Amino acid sequence: MGIDEGNGAVAVLRSLVAGHARICFANPGTTELTLVQAMADVRELKTVLCLFEGVATGAADGFSRVSGEVALTLLHLGPGFANGIANLHNARRAHSRIVNLIGDHATWHLAADAPLTSDIRSLAATVSAEVIYTGSPDSLAADIARGLRAARGACGAIATLILPTDVMDAPAPATAPATAPATAFVSGDPGDGTPRPVPAERIADVAQRLCTPGEKVILLGGAALGEAGIRAAERLARRCGARLLMEPYPAIVTLGGGLPRIERQAYFPDDVVRQMGEATVVLAGARMPISYFGYEGWPSQLVPDARLALLSEAGEDSVAALAALADLIGGVAGDLPPWPAAPATPQGLNAAAVVEALLPRLPADAIISLEGSTLGGPWLREAHRAARHQVMTNTGGAIGQGLPCALGAALAAPGRRVVSLQSDGSAQYTVQALWTIAHERLPITVIIAANHRYAILQTELRRASADLTHPAIAGMTVLDTPATDWVALAAAYGVPALRVNAGDELGVALDSALACEGPMLIAVELP
Amino acid sequence: MGIDEGNGAVAVLRSLVAGHARICFANPGTTELTLVQAMADVRELKTVLCLFEGVATGAADGFSRVSGEVALTLLHLGPGFANGIANLHNARRAHSRIVNLIGDHATWHLAADAPLTSDIRSLAATVSAEVIYTGSPDSLAADIARGLRAARGACGAIATLILPTDVMDAPAPATAPATAPATAFVSGDPGDGTPRPVPAERIADVAQRLCTPGEKVILLGGAALGEAGIRAAERLARRCGARLLMEPYPAIVTLGGGLPRIERQAYFPDDVVRQMGEATVVLAGARMPISYFGYEGWPSQLVPDARLALLSEAGEDSVAALAALADLIGGVAGDLPPWPAAPATPQGLNAAAVVEALLPRLPADAIISLEGSTLGGPWLREAHRAARHQVMTNTGGAIGQGLPCALGAALAAPGRRVVSLQSDGSAQYTVQALWTIAHERLPITVIIAANHRYAILQTELRRASADLTHPAIAGMTVLDTPATDWVALAAAYGVPALRVNAGDELGVALDSALACEGPMLIAVELP
Repeated sequence: MGIDEGNGAVAVLRSLVAGHARICFANPGTTELTLVQAMADVRELKTVLCLFEGVATGAADGFSRVSGEVALTLLHLGPGFANGIANLHNARRAHSRIVNLIGDHATWHLAADAPLTSDIRSLAATVSAEVIYTGSPDSLAADIARGLRAARGACGAIATLILPTDVMDAPAPATAPATAPATAFVSGDPGDGTPRPVPAERIADVAQRLCTPGEKVILLGGAALGEAGIRAAERLARRCGARLLMEPYPAIVTLGGGLPRIERQAYFPDDVVRQMGEATVVLAGARMPISYFGYEGWPSQLVPDARLALLSEAGEDSVAALAALADLIGGVAGDLPPWPAAPATPQGLNAAAVVEALLPRLPADAIISLEGSTLGGPWLREAHRAARHQVMTNTGGAIGQGLPCALGAALAAPGRRVVSLQSDGSAQYTVQALWTIAHERLPITVIIAANHRYAILQTELRRASADLTHPAIAGMTVLDTPATDWVALAAAYGVPALRVNAGDELGVALDSALACEGPMLIAVELP
Repeated sequence: MGIDEGNGAVAVLRSLVAGHARICFANPGTTELTLVQAMADVRELKTVLCLFEGVATGAADGFSRVSGEVALTLLHLGPGFANGIANLHNARRAHSRIVNLIGDHATWHLAADAPLTSDIRSLAATVSAEVIYTGSPDSLAADIARGLRAARGACGAIATLILPTDVMDAPAPATAPATAPATAFVSGDPGDGTPRPVPAERIADVAQRLCTPGEKVILLGGAALGEAGIRAAERLARRCGARLLMEPYPAIVTLGGGLPRIERQAYFPDDVVRQMGEATVVLAGARMPISYFGYEGWPSQLVPDARLALLSEAGEDSVAALAALADLIGGVAGDLPPWPAAPATPQGLNAAAVVEALLPRLPADAIISLEGSTLGGPWLREAHRAARHQVMTNTGGAIGQGLPCALGAALAAPGRRVVSLQSDGSAQYTVQALWTIAHERLPITVIIAANHRYAILQTELRRASADLTHPAIAGMTVLDTPATDWVALAAAYGVPALRVNAGDELGVALDSALACEGPMLIAVELP
């Protein structure tokens, strides 16, 4: 044992660093200790301790969304990995590039069915494009190259490497793996994240569809929601009189600072159907509009095939396709469709007041991690009025993503302010993220919408005409007995915090928090 | 929609209640809302809201260990279930009886691959003896009977029912399912938890082994660790001069109050080998001694086959077998082997001091939920000196079990004091349990061993001669920057708390906490 320059664990970390991985979000256990010791030898890899695995996987997701790079996680056997699945589910939907390292029992110890033995492969397969069991030191180099290549495909993806302790402890050449990935990348699928070009015929087909009269919507998703994609889409929209929409849950979208306002696809199927009207819907990196859940009386698919025009899907070069489409259509640039005037300044303390207070204060180039509908909906409606910023949303619906994603984003983009707009119910699932945020002294401003209830469930129950006051139903949706004290909770983890009880306290609280070099949490007590 | 006396959701809950389920630990989402509405109609079922799924599954485990009954969970799709897997892993190792209810998308909506769609069956199969997809209202009654029967087999087990929203919303007969389970139980495997009898020949074989000269160990596990099993084992041990040992991680063991002291199987393989010496090891409901992890130079199996004598395994009637074996051996009852004298009262504030302070104060019939080696080892060494109590341990090694298990135990045994002896690192994984403990006003005394480090990892690293002070290694094992403020954390969730900074404060703190009708947390700041 001991720190060995030439063991499997050192070779793993060296190979990953040679393959341009530079950060690992870790919650190790005994089966990962040779890898922990190897961290002492491979200091090029930044390691970030998380107190719960869902924090590690969510942080890896946030890091990858902001940087476009591969983020690593280090997790403990099947149960540790299982704790990270929910946020890997979101990461998979976000096409984030993640390589999970899971320490496993020694190969020869599996048959003993020791207490922590479980079916890691089945768990990992539910969220991973590749699950690789590294059963021998000889395959280390190739296995890591394969994992990195899978994560860096045209579509970002998750790869999971299962690393038995005996293979990590075994002697392994320290140099061969370090160079192997670089050569492995050039064969076959490049595995460098280059998107596939969109065939010219498809662009021509969509151009033809857009030249016929009628309502048009350009639905942007994925990479089309970066600045270049939005600018290209704006040029296109002005030429063909289309409305610009964004997919409902973007992995990361650039907004504000003079970029055109983009309408977000609605949540409930009836609203989506109304929103899409009779328009031809051009899909640029976005999936076709479907219902989030299956509601009786509404189909899954909310726009019929005949009105869908696929320009590009995930993994394809949506930005170039939008630009080429705008060129092809040519013509005169008109105005974008008008929007209703901004709402009047809201009275009292509510979600709109929080948004109005933040809009003028958000620093340029900020990154917002947005989880929950309480602040999420209002922010995305008004975000075009803020300085240029990026917003990450919950792509897969597995809650507990917001705080970890903010943490990962802050580590991916030093110098940029990160704001976590966070519902209180979902914050609970990965609340331990606050510790790592304090530990790393990250410039994250957390705004908790503390309404002490599962508001989304109450909304759904109201639509189903349920009696929200019935004790059985209130017992599953109201969280006010006791009401979590978010100021105490943040302080417990070393994050200074303020409570806001009235609308006119918002500005001062935000000024303090945004001036703070490190993290600060604002608990907004919503009625 | 709306509350419908005759829909699938009502039929599900009625059938479960008819099948003697009486509690459900829930963290519902949109796909479970028809089941939430049905809770208003089926008030015989107690429903307990948890703020994280790992709390719900751990609480179900604790409830089942203490009551022997089936506990239900209600979880949200694949990601919600995934968050519950770690504690289901422990529950599976404990042979707890759990039926998970997972709301799923409408059957017709799965093909749309909506954001929350994932492979629930593969996730569930890793911890469940049965995974049942209820695709139609017609199969509801049979599916629920099958799930309950699997959970109530001779070996307790986990069954998982996947319940699509359209099946829950559909009309379903409210009476047929309610009676079906009762009749279904009588056919085939009784599914009522009756253990299988141990064949007489096997008992005779073991008797013969015990009548040969040499060292003997009786290793107790499972139901053999209840009072009747221990008394029978004691009688047997006195007759054949054997030492009594318990498996290292019992699901629930009865100790103290005049019961003989039982040595716990050690953790590290070298210690186990030393402990077992040259003894013949009788396995009474326990698995053969294996290494917890695979260490180079030590085998998985720590006692050779030739020295193992299998009396009974999980699902078999260990208690009757031990009694029969004692009868068969007959002879004169000797003394049990002597133990070293109790240690002197420890100086300062350390784990031994916590144990010494608690020993005389533990109320009779208390239940201890024990997680982590800091307090766990010392308690189990001295527990025979306390009043009669039961101890639950972490059976599967997936950490984050202690607080939820305490919560479930308190609901299973009203009137009994529950004490959670809890390491700080593992408490973080399901810290949200504190909210439900406060919400339900449960008589749980939580004692946090706040050493602000992963002590078990440091122990393992020391054995591997690693440099604990190296920043990369300390960064993965030391949690003191910042040190979690457990008093603030408990208060944030509505649990009153005290901090103990010196050994002489322990007694007063314990007296306050144990006198408290509801919960109280003591943060013991260990050096």
